[in-house]
Amino acid sequence: MSVIATTIDRVLERVNAIGTLKAGFSRPSYSPEEGAAHEVIADEARHLGLTPCRDAAGNLAATLRGADPERTPLVIGSHLDTVHAGGAYDGTAGVAAGVALLAALREGGGIPPADIMLMVTRAEESVWFPVSYIGSRAALGRLTRADLDVVRADTGRPLADHMRDAGLDPEAAVQAPAPRPARFLEMHIEQGPVLHSADEPFALVTGVRGGLRYRTARIDGVWAHSGGAPREGRADAVVAFAELVRGMNAAWDAVLAQGHDLAVTFGRVDAAGPLHAMAKVAGTLGFCLDMRSDDPAVLERADAMLAEVVARIECETPGIKVDLGSRSRSTPVPLPAGMADGLDRAARRLGHAPRRMLSGGGHDAAAFAAAGWDSAMMFIRNWNGSHCPEEGMDQADLARAVEVVHAAVTEGDL
Amino acid sequence: MSVIATTIDRVLERVNAIGTLKAGFSRPSYSPEEGAAHEVIADEARHLGLTPCRDAAGNLAATLRGADPERTPLVIGSHLDTVHAGGAYDGTAGVAAGVALLAALREGGGIPPADIMLMVTRAEESVWFPVSYIGSRAALGRLTRADLDVVRADTGRPLADHMRDAGLDPEAAVQAPAPRPARFLEMHIEQGPVLHSADEPFALVTGVRGGLRYRTARIDGVWAHSGGAPREGRADAVVAFAELVRGMNAAWDAVLAQGHDLAVTFGRVDAAGPLHAMAKVAGTLGFCLDMRSDDPAVLERADAMLAEVVARIECETPGIKVDLGSRSRSTPVPLPAGMADGLDRAARRLGHAPRRMLSGGGHDAAAFAAAGWDSAMMFIRNWNGSHCPEEGMDQADLARAVEVVHAAVTEGDL
Repeated sequence: MSVIATTIDRVLERVNAIGTLKAGFSRPSYSPEEGAAHEVIADEARHLGLTPCRDAAGNLAATLRGADPERTPLVIGSHLDTVHAGGAYDGTAGVAAGVALLAALREGGGIPPADIMLMVTRAEESVWFPVSYIGSRAALGRLTRADLDVVRADTGRPLADHMRDAGLDPEAAVQAPAPRPARFLEMHIEQGPVLHSADEPFALVTGVRGGLRYRTARIDGVWAHSGGAPREGRADAVVAFAELVRGMNAAWDAVLAQGHDLAVTFGRVDAAGPLHAMAKVAGTLGFCLDMRSDDPAVLERADAMLAEVVARIECETPGIKVDLGSRSRSTPVPLPAGMADGLDRAARRLGHAPRRMLSGGGHDAAAFAAAGWDSAMMFIRNWNGSHCPEEGMDQADLARAVEVVHAAVTEGDL
Repeated sequence: MSVIATTIDRVLERVNAIGTLKAGFSRPSYSPEEGAAHEVIADEARHLGLTPCRDAAGNLAATLRGADPERTPLVIGSHLDTVHAGGAYDGTAGVAAGVALLAALREGGGIPPADIMLMVTRAEESVWFPVSYIGSRAALGRLTRADLDVVRADTGRPLADHMRDAGLDPEAAVQAPAPRPARFLEMHIEQGPVLHSADEPFALVTGVRGGLRYRTARIDGVWAHSGGAPREGRADAVVAFAELVRGMNAAWDAVLAQGHDLAVTFGRVDAAGPLHAMAKVAGTLGFCLDMRSDDPAVLERADAMLAEVVARIECETPGIKVDLGSRSRSTPVPLPAGMADGLDRAARRLGHAPRRMLSGGGHDAAAFAAAGWDSAMMFIRNWNGSHCPEEGMDQADLARAVEVVHAAVTEGDL
């Protein structure tokens, strides 16, 4: 089924010609680069004889009509924006997979049982706008007016302005009604090393972890001279941060030891401002904290452990004050097993035995599942992590997964 | 002796009108602001009937002739450059003290036994050029041609260029011969809280700690997705850094427990580049490490402990690599007791009982002592640390210390 492989290859190459950095890719949410990437997919859809259209928020859709207009449509898609210096596959692989599925269905010549819609969402990478799933929530009639005011990290300008710059209508995006629930399928690189380590090409996702996040946390201490300040009496923000990391790693160990799911990450640490110097005890330090779990109760417990660690550090070191800043959260979203079971049947007919696993990262599929859609995700083996220029994926693995979806669609499993 | 107090007040106010930030002061080494501050002191010297002159490196000197030209001159001074957003007193207080001493001697009308030279050095704050005591080493005929090539942290341009911009002659500064050794006295705020805590106005310094410094150290790990990377298998640069801080704090405790002198500071931590994000396990982190002691053997031992901690972390976490970068060092410099004993006698006659203490920070006096001069330092009580806008000093404390020096000079103790 080489049209799948050649389509994947072509779409990845065309999209990743846009926003290419010296290392990696940068297509910010609602940037001209994201818009150009959407235009590539619109062009791909036209070449397949489909009519691409976009909604008020700029999500792109193209539908291959099925035999039975009453049968619940299957929407397949992902996003094309990237983090700064991201990789070639996060989001883009899922879009290439959708185009490849349509190409394979076209080449097969038959008519699928239900409508198959390729959907390319906007603004999935929340590193740009600090809210989740802007595009998919807009497609679901769930974007709020408050969302329009959030500002993009690099420009400081609100979402509404960036939408208008892209020729879109933010007001209409907010007023869009919820569509009738359909089925959503997203293919995405695994953002960890599990499949690569196990030598498995793809997996079925059981749910998307939720998160508790502190994006603007800070430790304040007391500036002092590195040579003149005795050990006792120091209120060193760097030392307090090291204690915090250690305390939260211990908390993480305790949660894992009880068999619960949790990930704790301090991804950004900033004691490198104009006031920081080699010869100074740091009086302030900024950091981000990201905690994820499949269980909201575990997240609340981790948050309580954080409060305990902070209180202990503040108590043990007079002069240290930890300000966690505002907390944001996303709810864990289990994906219903129905579609995954159908994909599993098709996979086994083709000789695969995909594992079921959690997704650590948030994905558009979570937004669709949260809106009551039947949703599924497939993870594609990947190495070197994600959100980095080194994202590694064998396109043959993605093609194998698309073959499974094609079989599931054409043989009645989906 | 109000001329001391009024002189201190006036000099501090005039110099600190230059390079004032919203919070603190910024007079970089060999900047126009440092030059303007020197011009203020030249003007002060002229008002005292002295003839200011400057050497090839821009150090300013003004001499009050003594009765006996054969008697070893006493040089009193400090520097006027500041760190970025520094305070009103680091360096400047010592210069104000020198002007105040000359003013008091002038007002007294007598002729001091030996020449008294006010010296204002250049470029003492090594945060700008990463070498120590540029000005005082030039005054001592100890500046090297290699020093001329070091670049200023903010401009990236070499010392020689900045000297030429200031109308100076770098080549002549390097070729200057060593002067005949004299006596050097520096008054400086204490850069720690010891005198403030003990409620003592000033102290006599017994020596200047040396240091081992890593200015461009780095930990490399493996970038990963915060939700997708399982705990085992992570090579998180932030977590490794926290372990390093903890390990070096334990080493510090061990050294202190054996009664040795040591200070360990991680003053700058940078995991806040464009690649760092809340949702990413950090793949790299930069930091500075500053270790100080009065004993070179203790510094070497701390360095060996650092190597052990680094090796342990690298061994425990595959994927973590610590690159300490280049090491710089300064030798601990004991100050001979002779001048301090004289100052102590004068202080006791005036009702003071100054403690003797180490200096944690490097000072010009160390350069003079290292060149074989008889040198002394007085520390003035200070709070809120140093190298920060909040440096706190009671000008009356500085005036008391100058009164002691005046008494020591006029009554034969110095």
